[in-house]
Amino acid sequence: MTSVWGLGAFFAPETIAIIGASADETKIGGRPIRNLRLGGYRGQILPINPGRDTVQGLRAYPHLGDVAGPVELAIICVPAAQVPAAVADCVAKGVRAATIFSSGFAEVDAAGAAEQAKLVATASRGGLRLLGPNCMGTINTGVGLLGTFTSVIVNDPLPAGRISIASQSGAFGSHCLALMRKAGLGVNLWATTGNQCDVEVGDFLEYMAADPGTGTVIGSIEGVHDARSMIRAFEIARENRKPVIIMKVGRSEAGAAAMTSHTASLAGSDAVFDAVLRQHGVHRARSIDELMDVAYACSLGRFPTSRRLGIVTVSGGVGVLMADAAADVDLDVPPLPDDAQQRMKALVPFAGTRNPLDVTAQILANPGLIEPMFSTLITEGGYGSVIAFLSHLGLNPQVVAGLFPGLTRVAERYGDHFLAVSVLAHPDTRAALEKMGYAVFEDPTRAIVAIDALARFAEAFAKVPTPVAVAADMPRVTPGAIYSEYEAKALLRSVGVPVPDERVAASAMDAADAAQAIGFPVVLKILSPDIVHKSEIGGVILNIEDREAASAGYNLLQTRAAAAAPNARIDGVLVAPMIADGVETVLGVVRDPVFGPVVMFGLGGIFVEI
Amino acid sequence: MTSVWGLGAFFAPETIAIIGASADETKIGGRPIRNLRLGGYRGQILPINPGRDTVQGLRAYPHLGDVAGPVELAIICVPAAQVPAAVADCVAKGVRAATIFSSGFAEVDAAGAAEQAKLVATASRGGLRLLGPNCMGTINTGVGLLGTFTSVIVNDPLPAGRISIASQSGAFGSHCLALMRKAGLGVNLWATTGNQCDVEVGDFLEYMAADPGTGTVIGSIEGVHDARSMIRAFEIARENRKPVIIMKVGRSEAGAAAMTSHTASLAGSDAVFDAVLRQHGVHRARSIDELMDVAYACSLGRFPTSRRLGIVTVSGGVGVLMADAAADVDLDVPPLPDDAQQRMKALVPFAGTRNPLDVTAQILANPGLIEPMFSTLITEGGYGSVIAFLSHLGLNPQVVAGLFPGLTRVAERYGDHFLAVSVLAHPDTRAALEKMGYAVFEDPTRAIVAIDALARFAEAFAKVPTPVAVAADMPRVTPGAIYSEYEAKALLRSVGVPVPDERVAASAMDAADAAQAIGFPVVLKILSPDIVHKSEIGGVILNIEDREAASAGYNLLQTRAAAAAPNARIDGVLVAPMIADGVETVLGVVRDPVFGPVVMFGLGGIFVEI
Repeated sequence: MTSVWGLGAFFAPETIAIIGASADETKIGGRPIRNLRLGGYRGQILPINPGRDTVQGLRAYPHLGDVAGPVELAIICVPAAQVPAAVADCVAKGVRAATIFSSGFAEVDAAGAAEQAKLVATASRGGLRLLGPNCMGTINTGVGLLGTFTSVIVNDPLPAGRISIASQSGAFGSHCLALMRKAGLGVNLWATTGNQCDVEVGDFLEYMAADPGTGTVIGSIEGVHDARSMIRAFEIARENRKPVIIMKVGRSEAGAAAMTSHTASLAGSDAVFDAVLRQHGVHRARSIDELMDVAYACSLGRFPTSRRLGIVTVSGGVGVLMADAAADVDLDVPPLPDDAQQRMKALVPFAGTRNPLDVTAQILANPGLIEPMFSTLITEGGYGSVIAFLSHLGLNPQVVAGLFPGLTRVAERYGDHFLAVSVLAHPDTRAALEKMGYAVFEDPTRAIVAIDALARFAEAFAKVPTPVAVAADMPRVTPGAIYSEYEAKALLRSVGVPVPDERVAASAMDAADAAQAIGFPVVLKILSPDIVHKSEIGGVILNIEDREAASAGYNLLQTRAAAAAPNARIDGVLVAPMIADGVETVLGVVRDPVFGPVVMFGLGGIFVEI
Repeated sequence: MTSVWGLGAFFAPETIAIIGASADETKIGGRPIRNLRLGGYRGQILPINPGRDTVQGLRAYPHLGDVAGPVELAIICVPAAQVPAAVADCVAKGVRAATIFSSGFAEVDAAGAAEQAKLVATASRGGLRLLGPNCMGTINTGVGLLGTFTSVIVNDPLPAGRISIASQSGAFGSHCLALMRKAGLGVNLWATTGNQCDVEVGDFLEYMAADPGTGTVIGSIEGVHDARSMIRAFEIARENRKPVIIMKVGRSEAGAAAMTSHTASLAGSDAVFDAVLRQHGVHRARSIDELMDVAYACSLGRFPTSRRLGIVTVSGGVGVLMADAAADVDLDVPPLPDDAQQRMKALVPFAGTRNPLDVTAQILANPGLIEPMFSTLITEGGYGSVIAFLSHLGLNPQVVAGLFPGLTRVAERYGDHFLAVSVLAHPDTRAALEKMGYAVFEDPTRAIVAIDALARFAEAFAKVPTPVAVAADMPRVTPGAIYSEYEAKALLRSVGVPVPDERVAASAMDAADAAQAIGFPVVLKILSPDIVHKSEIGGVILNIEDREAASAGYNLLQTRAAAAAPNARIDGVLVAPMIADGVETVLGVVRDPVFGPVVMFGLGGIFVEI
């Protein structure tokens, strides 16, 4: 029953019962209480513990049923054996959502999986949504809800912001929180799904895509269970112009082997997963650095207006490095128009003016140059984003003071462009630049990768998805049937795929006539639904150059077919033009275990495997 | 006259004359004096300034000739027009080395290039080595020589260490210094070459490769002028077991276009450059982060004993991510032997034990587990390097205290292995880990890339380069001659390249006999040095299955050849076995403008272009 129904209770409950509440703040049943209070959660916290009157200073209840009013969210921290009773209690109490921290279920063995399935059955009868088991819970910084035992939260609550994260792995989700705190990136919602017995990452992604407090969505998944919910989430995010960044590991053979030993997640094809993300405008991060870089760049709320990138640099070599990096990710670095180059040359005589604009050490003497450089790139180069590499100048207070007025005006004037600075800078300089609207990166290559991701987001936001139109008079293919080459090509022709002018010859005379009509040279192929690999029986003759050779070829093919496959149904001989140039390609449909039918296209012939 | 002769004077002179010395510490002629004193340089600093008695408190001389004793190094800071006289003065004074900061030479125009050539002529007559013009000078932290005007050195001298850098670009060289200071990496020698009128980056690389104070060499080049000196540098470094890391930009079309506008460096083929680096055991960094990561990892002085990588992780997902990253760079992540896995399972019941070893959150409760994990991977898995992903646990003092005793023992016991930790940690925790011998990386993917580079270095160090043995009786190829397919293959066979059993037929009967001897099916090809593209004239007949067809084919090919190329010399018809499987490849020799003859090998046939 994957859907977003009832997920709100995991993020904004008015009452939270902690089943298995502990007086020890470091215990798994003690931490959520401590964290909720640390976060300033204003709702009611209801510790459930049959052995104590108070827990961490709060009134405790022996049993969930003893609570007088309604309970929206229960956090279950008891050992696995007691979880079924706790879930039953939640259903009896009319709780809307339960987070199960406890481990010892499907991640252990088949018996655990069976126990887990029973929990789901119990919950679904009572309309209770389950998160976990074996998960780390949820966070909503907007209401101070730190409903988790993650060890990332020690003494400081998290900075609030507009990035939301759904992670199957609690460890990975926690790592993201640690990185975001370090980078000063604010969290909105956070959810970990663990064994995903009911609520999955895809459900949270959908919820976050629609959530007004969320600007950017990060998803970390180990496998896709419900492809439809995931794709729905992607499309809702796109409609709301929210970037989605996905981390999914197990790309390689070694990674997939490690994956299998780590989780029972359904694999599917990684290439198909990649294609699905591309199609729906989602960025797949290949490293944790990249995940954070792209999320950071998104957090500034500016997106490139095109894939055209303008570059300003104080080092010619690093300008070339950035152009290389742009080429790697398919950003364009086209030259400035000539007249604009002339004007730049007048400003900085030794400058490289093509794009990158190499301002050289002149910027030290005249930091005001930064403004005309940015402005010229944007207005005359028509670049959708501009990056300036300023090396270590962010550490020089005098240069920074000289750069700031111009940078401020540029950021104000071109609010619809993506602006970035690659620089080593003191934290306050960095913060000031970010406040103006600049993305600040130390490493220029990482900046380029992030700009590429943002340009793709902008393209995806602008692209109205066109539903696949299937013509009503589409020819039907008989399931299981094997079509001869001629029949298959006729089907393709009928739906608009161009195929060569081919004819079926039923006699040697026919073959000669067909060849003449097509034009020499031609190729002859034995035509039989029972002979799939024609060349193996010598069923193809190339370079037929005259009528005589065509007739003789017809007879030779019949003889060879009769010898090699006496029982094959022979439909004649296919006469086709000899096509010598072009690239042999392969087109097919594969059925992915996760995403269903997928169109496959690539290099054909003997290179299919390569 | 590229060579290391006389380069020592750029790094360890006893006397330095500053020609164009300025009393203003911020001027190009003032900064080197200020920096030399800041660095604690103990030699003599001799300001040359005709207008002042003292400069920055030092006695100044009106003219270089007025200095009484010998001068080893001159730093020339005068405007371009005065540089020729300054160089002539250096020659007259018997100065050994001169660094020219001044710009306005080959980087500007042809007239500047001509002026620059004259400087070289003057200098070489006097045995004077020239650095620059348009460069930022040299550094040797060992003697406090900060002979540069780079703006990186403001108030702090640089940390000393064993990494040496030679960079054509002063801006890039300066950026590296800023990054190294930030990362706490120590510099030994540093040199920037600018226009490289005499001394080139390759010369400094060779000098650094032999320099006892240098452990790791970084080179940044925009183009290769003297391939031999560069290769000599690489081989000296390899003999001395010193890693060399090269940054060379301009890989892409866009990058190369930016390059052309930035420098007149000779391009050569980027693929050939890449291959040369691989062959000589040099790492090419693709980003600045990667350059610094690899240099950092090298600075610990430990190298992997093999490409087999063992992984410990507190997050299963990040373990898979690291296995993916290892596959991307071609490191192996083989599984632990079964019995070792059983023992690990006994230690941590919920652990993934294959490799990665997924220790889960158990490490929090029992940090001592880290020791048996590392030890088991090294002794029983036989991994050449081991990395542990510990997420944010380095921020938790209790966990750190629990991990340290085990980590210390592991580092002591396995000093010949490369050990790394990927962790968010306080700076002092990080420093303590590095002191033990662990490389500490925040991002696990970057750690894997660095480990790969170090494993390749270790392989390169272990590999004794085998000089190419050219047999004395090697057949000679006539320059300019075109060989028929048969002749060419005969040449290949004579030097040991296997070719199919092919025969030349001089008549239809011959063809039938040859075909029978080889075994059917065969292929017939017209044999003529004048017909290079045989298939275009129908000069190839495939799938000949009997004697009759072979005879007929012989005659048909003769007819076709006579019709298509009446003046061609026909050497007969080649009869060869029909080879249907295998992958068509291409093998050739191309002459690279920088590196000379290069063997080219790749996919052949119609896919050569792809």
